[in-house]
Amino acid sequence: MMVVMNIDATKEQIDAVIARVEANKFKVIVNPGEERTVIAVVGPNPSAIREQLMYMPGVDHTVPISRPYKIASREFIPENTVFPLDGFMIGGDEVVMIAGPCAVESRSQLLECAQAVKEAGAHALRGGAFKPRSSPYSFQGMGEEGLEILAEAREVTGLPVFTEVIAPEQVPLVAKYADVLQIGARNMQNFALLHAAGECDKPVLLKRGPSALIEELLMAAEYILSHGNRRVILCERGVRTFETSTRNTTDINAIPVLKNLTHLPVILDPSHSTGHADLVAPVARAGIAAGADGLIIEVHPNPRQALSDGGQSLTPEKFAILVRQAKGIAREVGRK
Amino acid sequence: MMVVMNIDATKEQIDAVIARVEANKFKVIVNPGEERTVIAVVGPNPSAIREQLMYMPGVDHTVPISRPYKIASREFIPENTVFPLDGFMIGGDEVVMIAGPCAVESRSQLLECAQAVKEAGAHALRGGAFKPRSSPYSFQGMGEEGLEILAEAREVTGLPVFTEVIAPEQVPLVAKYADVLQIGARNMQNFALLHAAGECDKPVLLKRGPSALIEELLMAAEYILSHGNRRVILCERGVRTFETSTRNTTDINAIPVLKNLTHLPVILDPSHSTGHADLVAPVARAGIAAGADGLIIEVHPNPRQALSDGGQSLTPEKFAILVRQAKGIAREVGRK
Amino acid sequence: MMVVMNIDATKEQIDAVIARVEANKFKVIVNPGEERTVIAVVGPNPSAIREQLMYMPGVDHTVPISRPYKIASREFIPENTVFPLDGFMIGGDEVVMIAGPCAVESRSQLLECAQAVKEAGAHALRGGAFKPRSSPYSFQGMGEEGLEILAEAREVTGLPVFTEVIAPEQVPLVAKYADVLQIGARNMQNFALLHAAGECDKPVLLKRGPSALIEELLMAAEYILSHGNRRVILCERGVRTFETSTRNTTDINAIPVLKNLTHLPVILDPSHSTGHADLVAPVARAGIAAGADGLIIEVHPNPRQALSDGGQSLTPEKFAILVRQAKGIAREVGRK
Amino acid sequence: MMVVMNIDATKEQIDAVIARVEANKFKVIVNPGEERTVIAVVGPNPSAIREQLMYMPGVDHTVPISRPYKIASREFIPENTVFPLDGFMIGGDEVVMIAGPCAVESRSQLLECAQAVKEAGAHALRGGAFKPRSSPYSFQGMGEEGLEILAEAREVTGLPVFTEVIAPEQVPLVAKYADVLQIGARNMQNFALLHAAGECDKPVLLKRGPSALIEELLMAAEYILSHGNRRVILCERGVRTFETSTRNTTDINAIPVLKNLTHLPVILDPSHSTGHADLVAPVARAGIAAGADGLIIEVHPNPRQALSDGGQSLTPEKFAILVRQAKGIAREVGRK
Repeated sequence: MMVVMNIDATKEQIDAVIARVEANKFKVIVNPGEERTVIAVVGPNPSAIREQLMYMPGVDHTVPISRPYKIASREFIPENTVFPLDGFMIGGDEVVMIAGPCAVESRSQLLECAQAVKEAGAHALRGGAFKPRSSPYSFQGMGEEGLEILAEAREVTGLPVFTEVIAPEQVPLVAKYADVLQIGARNMQNFALLHAAGECDKPVLLKRGPSALIEELLMAAEYILSHGNRRVILCERGVRTFETSTRNTTDINAIPVLKNLTHLPVILDPSHSTGHADLVAPVARAGIAAGADGLIIEVHPNPRQALSDGGQSLTPEKFAILVRQAKGIAREVGRK
Repeated sequence: MMVVMNIDATKEQIDAVIARVEANKFKVIVNPGEERTVIAVVGPNPSAIREQLMYMPGVDHTVPISRPYKIASREFIPENTVFPLDGFMIGGDEVVMIAGPCAVESRSQLLECAQAVKEAGAHALRGGAFKPRSSPYSFQGMGEEGLEILAEAREVTGLPVFTEVIAPEQVPLVAKYADVLQIGARNMQNFALLHAAGECDKPVLLKRGPSALIEELLMAAEYILSHGNRRVILCERGVRTFETSTRNTTDINAIPVLKNLTHLPVILDPSHSTGHADLVAPVARAGIAAGADGLIIEVHPNPRQALSDGGQSLTPEKFAILVRQAKGIAREVGRK
Repeated sequence: MMVVMNIDATKEQIDAVIARVEANKFKVIVNPGEERTVIAVVGPNPSAIREQLMYMPGVDHTVPISRPYKIASREFIPENTVFPLDGFMIGGDEVVMIAGPCAVESRSQLLECAQAVKEAGAHALRGGAFKPRSSPYSFQGMGEEGLEILAEAREVTGLPVFTEVIAPEQVPLVAKYADVLQIGARNMQNFALLHAAGECDKPVLLKRGPSALIEELLMAAEYILSHGNRRVILCERGVRTFETSTRNTTDINAIPVLKNLTHLPVILDPSHSTGHADLVAPVARAGIAAGADGLIIEVHPNPRQALSDGGQSLTPEKFAILVRQAKGIAREVGRK
Repeated sequence: MMVVMNIDATKEQIDAVIARVEANKFKVIVNPGEERTVIAVVGPNPSAIREQLMYMPGVDHTVPISRPYKIASREFIPENTVFPLDGFMIGGDEVVMIAGPCAVESRSQLLECAQAVKEAGAHALRGGAFKPRSSPYSFQGMGEEGLEILAEAREVTGLPVFTEVIAPEQVPLVAKYADVLQIGARNMQNFALLHAAGECDKPVLLKRGPSALIEELLMAAEYILSHGNRRVILCERGVRTFETSTRNTTDINAIPVLKNLTHLPVILDPSHSTGHADLVAPVARAGIAAGADGLIIEVHPNPRQALSDGGQSLTPEKFAILVRQAKGIAREVGRK
């Protein structure tokens, strides 16, 4: 960490900062600049004393040098994290397609959809039984009955199931039925939930919050990793910006940035990141071209009658075309 | 709700939309515009069929007309919601000052601080026992022991206590000790927590999420209100923008916008909305001038040694000056 | 346009709005909703009276229905605008690669770079002679001498030249040397410059402003188009958001959104939209996969010694690899 | 400037960076951290070699330490810049009120308005003769005729005139009529215009761009200052965020941040920063409470019939009330 002093900081103020740093058992290197002095704080975890220092007289600001996450960092674990789900690997050469409806609405809807996405080439099934909805008056999901239907769809199709968990005490219940627990964007900094997911023995799909920095997404992953669960998949799903023509703004930069910073698998959710069915395919293709390890896409056998997010769902036919295009692009960028 | 058709929508497409609307028992008014047809959907809760309609052939987009929240709306309840806490009213003529440290760090720190803010003119004490921290390696709060210390501080000073709750299963525990439950910005859309707070018999301070629309804050309040708890206080605490010189951007516009849209009390947290101790007083004064019903401010007897957020804490001396200025400004805008 | 009345608007207020609309020679359709009345204003260009109406007593807000741009709209001109530059077409089947240094720094640098990008497969050369720089103390470009060097590079390589113009009175000078005039992001709403470019006989590359809505980009294009110049190329170059790990956030959604809304060619600038050389190739590929008609990329023979934006420049070798990948992806999405 | 190396940077890479820094005549201080080496670059204007260094092998990123602006900085000029306009000082103890219509629409409208704002307590008159409008089809202002009307209003009322200039070649014309030249938000980084304003002998009101960092606003001011014009007034007028209930988000934090960083006068434009007449007064009061040196406010004798921005204009009556409130608040914060 660097402590940048004011232009007119006095020698007493500089000495006081040095004394405080040394009192905390860190080493000091003083950089007397042309305009202002900078004090380097050397030792393990200097950010522990950041807030003490930034408020001392004569201090302008502090600059962290180390990244605040460890286990999530590619500097800590250089090799890609690759792990198996039923019948395929995630994080490896193959681009993974996860598809299904936004919400489980009924047994027949889900089984029909599961069969359709399997035939179209999906590797896994998605579908929400517990739905976080911004209005208390909207459909909130089928709950445990929805989980049972998802489990039945797995039996029938062989596709592993991704589904959302929205409260810490639900983790054991959802883990009983699901193959991968999804933590939604609005819960990315629900630390009680991250903690519970970190102690669970199922992989976790962690979605980026709508205004979360990439660094904060990695910190949220660190919560899960540091509680013992090393199977975390990161998901870009669009960020909130001033642009109003789309539901969110897909931060496509985040795909290569994350692949540089972390060894964890990174996927894209073009359904939520765009919010319009006719934008899903181009942005999904962009995700693969940018290096994503997979896609999670809303597919509904009859989007016009979906109870939630129908406007951003693909038909199974359009999804099948997208699967073919995604594979073609994956080959062009050196994957399967 | 209005359904706006494409410029080249066919008569068949328009008729299909009308048929769908009528099949759902809504009335239709057709507006044949110069360029495009707009179909008005009339009846209670038309947004229930919005997602069905927006995906139909020939539809360009839909425009909601009604507000999605009810109980929170000033159109529904025109009079200000005013309710008592120990010794004062919130939402009424008097501007309320809530102050204390970011986190409870020890019995002596909290008791010293509680006494100091009381003497400086605070109406209530704030302090976190459960701390949502972005890093798993940061101080996470003292937990139940912290709650006990807060309760002791109330005994000693007579100040009611505001403290944060971060998981639904904690609500009964925190409600046992606290006078007002705080739901933090990162949990504003933790719907399981909102639901639990709605069933609790203590008032709730609900903070706006860092990228939440004002409408979404009101929807989150609606979750609490619709589960039976009518004592909700809203809090602007800054939003996330591109500007990096401050921790957040104080959305001062939100104060009068919220006072127009809702009858609930609205307060400002200038400590988190700025992130720098020397900006707290000017922005706090701005909040009162803009019509806020109160302020929640971090005050620490020794900010330089605070375990969290020290850089944005006021000393008790500076807080006392601010209390006097706030009262002066309150009088200028017709309050006490 | 729709005028949405307050829930408690009186009959007199509604009648006054209707009278005002009719006094302006528009037709009125009244939609008496369940909660509030909505008044449709029908006729050409109703937004001309929007500001009059939005302030009338009893009016809650107004909703525009028509798009505010005409000539730029695909509804007005359904077919793609395709036009030739020296030796290739832009807006057609082929993906166009425009490459070169950020700034013209010297004759030898530019000629070397022009030759290198030509060999690597570029269709056109970019390079700035007038540089808009945020600091008055930074290198501001070589001015007319830079333009002469660019013209020489065109003679030598046959590549048409894209270069920036930053003031209206410069337009004739830059048009004398350049094949395409570039209007930079910070000048996207410099209306005097747009006006001058609209009267010029050279094509214009118009970059999206860092916080411009897609609709505002199309309005800026409309300025040029409405003054007579129909050869406008739009360029996404990243928007400003809260994310700090990249220079800008590439709004990849904007590519298919623009291709839907307008007939004009749309290209991507992954150099500015990411700001880091190692992110340029993945994001460039994403642009092609999302449907962009071309790419404009900073390439420098020796990025480490560039006078501006070196950190985001590719070497000619890396650019050559990217050209091959871009062509491969273009084929996968049905282009050349 | 600090050059932060990668965790696995080799000794050769570190030595190469040191050699490059020294070759550029800067001094080097090496900080061997626990995790990564940081190299301090010491000497005047080290950012001149930033782009060279950030791209060298083994470099993670660079951190500037000095501020990029000089003359605008309070570190450079500690005393407030205070200068006279006709009859009052700006930047001093008194809070200055600048008021008038968005655009000059006619002689009678302007003269009526000028008289009304004078009677209500305004110090100066605002009004646009050249209007930058996002649509080419909107009213673009009366041009030089508007300037003549403004000059006549000054004769009649004695109020100095603030009016906008939108192109560099207009500067002499506008300076002939106006007392203060306004540079609008969309032109904040129109460097040709800043340059021209810097060579003009009239004070300049510089508005912050809708997505400009506070630092960028100060850099834009530096353009004007460094070309010789030291009479610059800064204006916060709202920034663009995700929030849609207001036209812009007033960055109230910017007022005290700017007062800390610079000696230049800082005013607030609550009309554009909110976009709604009923929000102007509360946000205007907030600006004064936060320390602004003045306000610039749209006032129109008949807002409902204004040709532009009518919805955000105050009536003269409401403006008069606001003037009284603003003075009361100014006294509470120790001003006149």
